[in-house]
Amino acid sequence: MTVSSSTSKVLTIDTINPHVRTMEYAVRGALPIRAEQLVRELRNKDNKLPFDKITFCNIGNPQQLGQKPLTFIRQVTALVEYTDLLKDENMELTKKMFPEDAIDRAKNILGWTNNAIGAYTESLGIHEIRESVAKFIEERDGFAADADSIGLTAGASVAVERILNLIISSSNVGIMIPIPQYPLYTATIAKLDAHAVPYYLRENKQWGLNAEELKQVLSEHKAKGIDVRALVVINPGNPTGSLLTKENMVDIVRFCEENKLVLIADEVYQANIYQPERRPFHSFKKIVRELDSSVELFSLHSISKGMIGECGRRGGYYETVNLDKDVSDQLYKMAAVSLCPNVTGQVAVEIMVNPPKKGEPSYNLYQQELNDIYESMRRRSIKLCDAFNALENITCNSAEGAMYLFPQIRFPKKAIQAAEELGKSPEFLYCMGLLESTGVCVVPGGGFHQEPGTFHFRSTFLPPEDQLDQFIERIKGFHDSFMDKYRD
Amino acid sequence: MTVSSSTSKVLTIDTINPHVRTMEYAVRGALPIRAEQLVRELRNKDNKLPFDKITFCNIGNPQQLGQKPLTFIRQVTALVEYTDLLKDENMELTKKMFPEDAIDRAKNILGWTNNAIGAYTESLGIHEIRESVAKFIEERDGFAADADSIGLTAGASVAVERILNLIISSSNVGIMIPIPQYPLYTATIAKLDAHAVPYYLRENKQWGLNAEELKQVLSEHKAKGIDVRALVVINPGNPTGSLLTKENMVDIVRFCEENKLVLIADEVYQANIYQPERRPFHSFKKIVRELDSSVELFSLHSISKGMIGECGRRGGYYETVNLDKDVSDQLYKMAAVSLCPNVTGQVAVEIMVNPPKKGEPSYNLYQQELNDIYESMRRRSIKLCDAFNALENITCNSAEGAMYLFPQIRFPKKAIQAAEELGKSPEFLYCMGLLESTGVCVVPGGGFHQEPGTFHFRSTFLPPEDQLDQFIERIKGFHDSFMDKYRD
Repeated sequence: MTVSSSTSKVLTIDTINPHVRTMEYAVRGALPIRAEQLVRELRNKDNKLPFDKITFCNIGNPQQLGQKPLTFIRQVTALVEYTDLLKDENMELTKKMFPEDAIDRAKNILGWTNNAIGAYTESLGIHEIRESVAKFIEERDGFAADADSIGLTAGASVAVERILNLIISSSNVGIMIPIPQYPLYTATIAKLDAHAVPYYLRENKQWGLNAEELKQVLSEHKAKGIDVRALVVINPGNPTGSLLTKENMVDIVRFCEENKLVLIADEVYQANIYQPERRPFHSFKKIVRELDSSVELFSLHSISKGMIGECGRRGGYYETVNLDKDVSDQLYKMAAVSLCPNVTGQVAVEIMVNPPKKGEPSYNLYQQELNDIYESMRRRSIKLCDAFNALENITCNSAEGAMYLFPQIRFPKKAIQAAEELGKSPEFLYCMGLLESTGVCVVPGGGFHQEPGTFHFRSTFLPPEDQLDQFIERIKGFHDSFMDKYRD
Repeated sequence: MTVSSSTSKVLTIDTINPHVRTMEYAVRGALPIRAEQLVRELRNKDNKLPFDKITFCNIGNPQQLGQKPLTFIRQVTALVEYTDLLKDENMELTKKMFPEDAIDRAKNILGWTNNAIGAYTESLGIHEIRESVAKFIEERDGFAADADSIGLTAGASVAVERILNLIISSSNVGIMIPIPQYPLYTATIAKLDAHAVPYYLRENKQWGLNAEELKQVLSEHKAKGIDVRALVVINPGNPTGSLLTKENMVDIVRFCEENKLVLIADEVYQANIYQPERRPFHSFKKIVRELDSSVELFSLHSISKGMIGECGRRGGYYETVNLDKDVSDQLYKMAAVSLCPNVTGQVAVEIMVNPPKKGEPSYNLYQQELNDIYESMRRRSIKLCDAFNALENITCNSAEGAMYLFPQIRFPKKAIQAAEELGKSPEFLYCMGLLESTGVCVVPGGGFHQEPGTFHFRSTFLPPEDQLDQFIERIKGFHDSFMDKYRD
């Protein structure tokens, strides 16, 4: 087999799409790649690693760390998958293994697809499921929603990519994004060769934002000739774990309206709300309606987050508000080219927005599973946050929502110098050291962008509750020795 | 609720990404959209439509038209979804409803994911499944394959989009595509603002191609300054239903090598081969290896086609051959940004490439289901092709592969004039007429592009076998009256 040398290739790092090359995605970048290598090294019994497992806190992937799926979702899915279970002659056995309401649900969903769950659905997803989503939104917000303004997607990432692709009409377009942000945004904007226009969340104000700063950032970028067209909010925040105040939300909607910006509201963590009395979740859809605003809004949701955590299944939806009909038609066409979102992802969306109701056989179990996960996540968020704050040179805002903490580290000068000598950022040095000595995988803050001169990392608080003390001990052990090594 | 007038919107048909606007995707375009409306009209019992159902032949969507899924795929999926079925205390009941090998398979697959089928997998898909794919390719071709050169995707469409996005580095890039073609290619190339460089398949040579013409097309486009970088083949052909001769395949590989073109081989219909003695399937991977060629190849496969037809599930894979390592890393990064392909799509890929083996409990049923579907598809392809050829002014090549026929219609001048007066193509007039009077939905040939001055439509041959006579009668009735109306 002759393989010609790299220089004779058509595709090299220098000839491919430069905007692909520019993309960065730290959540699955250098640290997680090294962590995957370590997983393989651990399989070798003669390994000399100082830990016996890798704990992946780089990504909000609850079931990877042992979170159990919600039983009802899996029951309904199994029944729509293997429909022989629903045949009359098997029903006696099936009823021994599946509750009545899971059977009824499965039959309903099959009916919506003419018993062909294996066929492409409508491009935007099964119409009846989009109706369920609309009803869920109405009940959540107290304002009407329309199934035709909803598109099901294989996770929110697909929606983000599709929406940005629609909006970005030239390389002169700018999209305002919060800093810190989830790197899907910078990656997608880079791929589409547009400008990420950053506005900062204020760490010392619980990651709130300053409406005056929005104006300033916008006018600075407009002055440079950039066609700023949209503003992204992530609420609850990723990586910050914070919720915007209602005042901030009103400011944002007004700002978008005054400045003719489309609003993209990433609300995938809307069920992960840990201080509901002090800081409840409000959707941007609700704020837009309350203000009677004409802002064009895209709102995103997902089955990967919340207490469902069905990350591997890939499911979600977007709702559009105040969108021009011709533009909706173009979004439909984009969906059509990729045929349809996977059906079991759609099924999980249906159950997320229309769970078992009071009086139905699965109601109690569903609520209990949901609540157990919720309470445990809340407790873990507090415990891990307290643990971070107890460490030398670390401060960390509490998690009002989402699945992440984003602690700030103030590095000793010696650590910064040591990192500089290696050509790395100090937080990279820290996170890689943490991984190599404890098996804990977190993501350096630079991957999310951060205020210059500050250093953070993002960690999920998803390690199982019964292992959390030990997890904290591992981090503390590394942290103390790191500080001992570099203390000024 | 105040909605401002369309003119004050940020996003209008004139301000969105113009390359999105340019995309065309006829397979789910005007005809299918009208067909969906008719489905809703049929639900009204007082409708006056001259048919009682819509037959969707616009898209290769077998289960929509009643094809049964392969039992083993569904059994394994149900078990990995609802893992309570695998608990010791339930095993007695489970064994009554599931064969032993489905249970074993489910346990294996769960093991590969640490019992967390609901977690994100590796970005390129579960490693063990990629190893199964590599083994399948080795057995198919007789040449080595490497799991690290394989990426699982949510259907081949995702792979096409990702690969073209990687290759298209500027709006000056050209991608050679066959005409007629599957419109995903023109749509994606349009979205990425590159040039589709057409080469024609010769209808009178069973849709074969002419190596001399490839050279000519290439030099014409190079002379215009276009940076032609890749060539797409769809084999078996879509919409043509043809297979390339081995001679044609050798010509293509040599042509790509000589002219430094990347080869993208869309081989999703590789299991739909209806004249295997006369025209067997050869993969381009095999030809590249036989020729000891250094051509950079992407080969695509899917669970949506073949006899599996799990379209709604979204699963597939690509294999890269001779790709530079740095470029592979960039492909990995692109996969990472969208996290991972959905897990049950991956599960179906595993079973497609690694079906039950001789001696295992499910072997006979699996083979019988596969074979029944195959034989029926083959019979239907012949019967429908014969029926088209029996119609006035229609000629149609037989289907050597895939799921489609692409008959040519020679329209009377009067029909062409009538269409012109309506501002439509004659085949659009024909196809819309067919839909409105019979409920049969096919796609006008223009959606696939065709040699200027020729007119075609694409129809699947997927209507159920027991309804095929009636289906043919409906088409013949419309066709005859159309010709009566417009005969010169």
